[in-house]
Amino acid sequence: MEELCMEIERRSGIKCYERSIENVLSSVLVTSDFWKIVKDSEEVLVLVSDIINVLEEKGYLEETNGKISLTDKGKQLIESMKLYEKTSFECDSCEGRGISIEEHKDLLKEFMRYHEKRPKPIRKYDQGFVTPSTTIARISFMMEKGDLGGKRIIVLGDDDLVSIAAALSGYPKEIAVIEIDSRITDFISKAAKEIGFDIQIHERDLREPLPSELVGRFHTFFTDPPETLKALQLFIGRGITSLIGERCSGYFGLTRVEASLEKWREIQRILLDDFKVVITDIIRSFNKYMNWDYIKETKAWNKSTKWIPEDIWYTSYLYRIETLSGTKSRNERVDEDIYQDVESSTS
Amino acid sequence: MEELCMEIERRSGIKCYERSIENVLSSVLVTSDFWKIVKDSEEVLVLVSDIINVLEEKGYLEETNGKISLTDKGKQLIESMKLYEKTSFECDSCEGRGISIEEHKDLLKEFMRYHEKRPKPIRKYDQGFVTPSTTIARISFMMEKGDLGGKRIIVLGDDDLVSIAAALSGYPKEIAVIEIDSRITDFISKAAKEIGFDIQIHERDLREPLPSELVGRFHTFFTDPPETLKALQLFIGRGITSLIGERCSGYFGLTRVEASLEKWREIQRILLDDFKVVITDIIRSFNKYMNWDYIKETKAWNKSTKWIPEDIWYTSYLYRIETLSGTKSRNERVDEDIYQDVESSTS
Repeated sequence: MEELCMEIERRSGIKCYERSIENVLSSVLVTSDFWKIVKDSEEVLVLVSDIINVLEEKGYLEETNGKISLTDKGKQLIESMKLYEKTSFECDSCEGRGISIEEHKDLLKEFMRYHEKRPKPIRKYDQGFVTPSTTIARISFMMEKGDLGGKRIIVLGDDDLVSIAAALSGYPKEIAVIEIDSRITDFISKAAKEIGFDIQIHERDLREPLPSELVGRFHTFFTDPPETLKALQLFIGRGITSLIGERCSGYFGLTRVEASLEKWREIQRILLDDFKVVITDIIRSFNKYMNWDYIKETKAWNKSTKWIPEDIWYTSYLYRIETLSGTKSRNERVDEDIYQDVESSTS
Repeated sequence: MEELCMEIERRSGIKCYERSIENVLSSVLVTSDFWKIVKDSEEVLVLVSDIINVLEEKGYLEETNGKISLTDKGKQLIESMKLYEKTSFECDSCEGRGISIEEHKDLLKEFMRYHEKRPKPIRKYDQGFVTPSTTIARISFMMEKGDLGGKRIIVLGDDDLVSIAAALSGYPKEIAVIEIDSRITDFISKAAKEIGFDIQIHERDLREPLPSELVGRFHTFFTDPPETLKALQLFIGRGITSLIGERCSGYFGLTRVEASLEKWREIQRILLDDFKVVITDIIRSFNKYMNWDYIKETKAWNKSTKWIPEDIWYTSYLYRIETLSGTKSRNERVDEDIYQDVESSTS
């Protein structure tokens, strides 16, 4: 097992634990679908792909017509490891979020009108948007936490159209959006006029420092950055910079598909030691992403069995943080590529 | 507002933010019940009590027959602060946990038989147990995460009888319990015989180092420590000590009722910097506690309006952590009082 781990690690450049292999095998006990294995195993996609390849070469797994299954040798391995199937007890009612959107049914219906007309995601900005019910769950959760009603909120990158849902809800006192893609800023701008809510739209690149009128002005930020350390640090840093001060909140998504637990630990360390905020919530399966059109152009596709995913497979955790006394922000200019690292596969 | 914060802070010895006052006032918009205000505001009970007292003295709140309400002056304050009611969108179906126990209905029924006969909680060990559906949700969540089926699990302090539910589920390969209270070890021991699952029971004080036969032996630990930093550090340190190595997991509960966000930040820093683990999940409202008999002996009672709580009001978040390469454990003897600090109120 140790040798297997080392070989996989060498190939992928990502730390491979015995538990990583176990998580993949437990998923294969339930499904032969590559995308579902990624979802269930909660290991980085690039690593899952290398685990499957190496286990195939060693005769534990086989692939037929893009479907992955155990060989007899693989079944023996599972027997000897005493592995259980990867089971899910995700709540049907709230899709595992612990947040019911029942009271926001009408809001969802209104939001759907915009969702249906929205610009398609493009690869250039690592877009790929969440389901409409995810967006409404975000609104509900922020409302429950006291972060939306009567508050000034800012959305840093808004291909999920959180600002439109927030405007439709009527809860916030003020909404601002920073977004690089003019197709989306145009869309939000038209929607805002239709709704009659003055959403402030700033078409700019987040690598540029926040302009002074956005610094220290908001109660709540929402962002869903690319999953590289640089992007996370940048987007969250800008978010904190935009906040008024103590006991304000920030929300962001973080997946396991493109971020190993090593990267998670590093992000958490940055949150605590560098930004000096506190993490108040980390909720699995909160953000569910629609399958996107440009999947065949991604590294994920090359690493997969090259069968189009049938269900939602890309999910992320929702993080909520709060500022406290001593919290630090960061607003300097960043010039590097923030979209790619060894664990990325969908940008 | 700043003056109010300073006065409250002086009185309680706990950091009071404007947001703390806001959270209490938003709750008063929904309920006049002290215990529900504590639950909804998510501020430390001792602080909530001091906020209410100071706001009463300043004429913003009044108390009649143990019920708290806004005065006209208070209503004006809320108007000027543009405060919204504290709303809850907790999922009815999974009680906000994101975990459905539907598939474990029979397990819950079997567990109820033991729950009904269990020893009552006693104050000496800061007991106070969760609802039976919470215990089954814990089992379901650990199973979903791959931490229970075929695994060696250890429960550090088990007044919630997690070990009995785990044995009834039949999932684990091995179950061990460390518990100081002989009433509980006797109860678990009898239950284990009845169920026919060999639960290893160690009647001991966790302040003593773990004996060598429990060191480096388990895949998963579960614990629900008192909420002081010392106790959390001790219980989690013992838990990590009991684990085999990398990519093993630990679960613990952490409330806001007796732990401020300052304390939360310190605990998270300890997890990341000292123990070098990663936090994978933080789920609000996961653990729901039954009201307990000795409430009138507690500081919480003295700080309250002295009306018996009608509903469940004490909840805690469920934390899950994973060990990674570089994780450190701690097993030295501790002699101090681990039950009390300035934020405690129910021990």
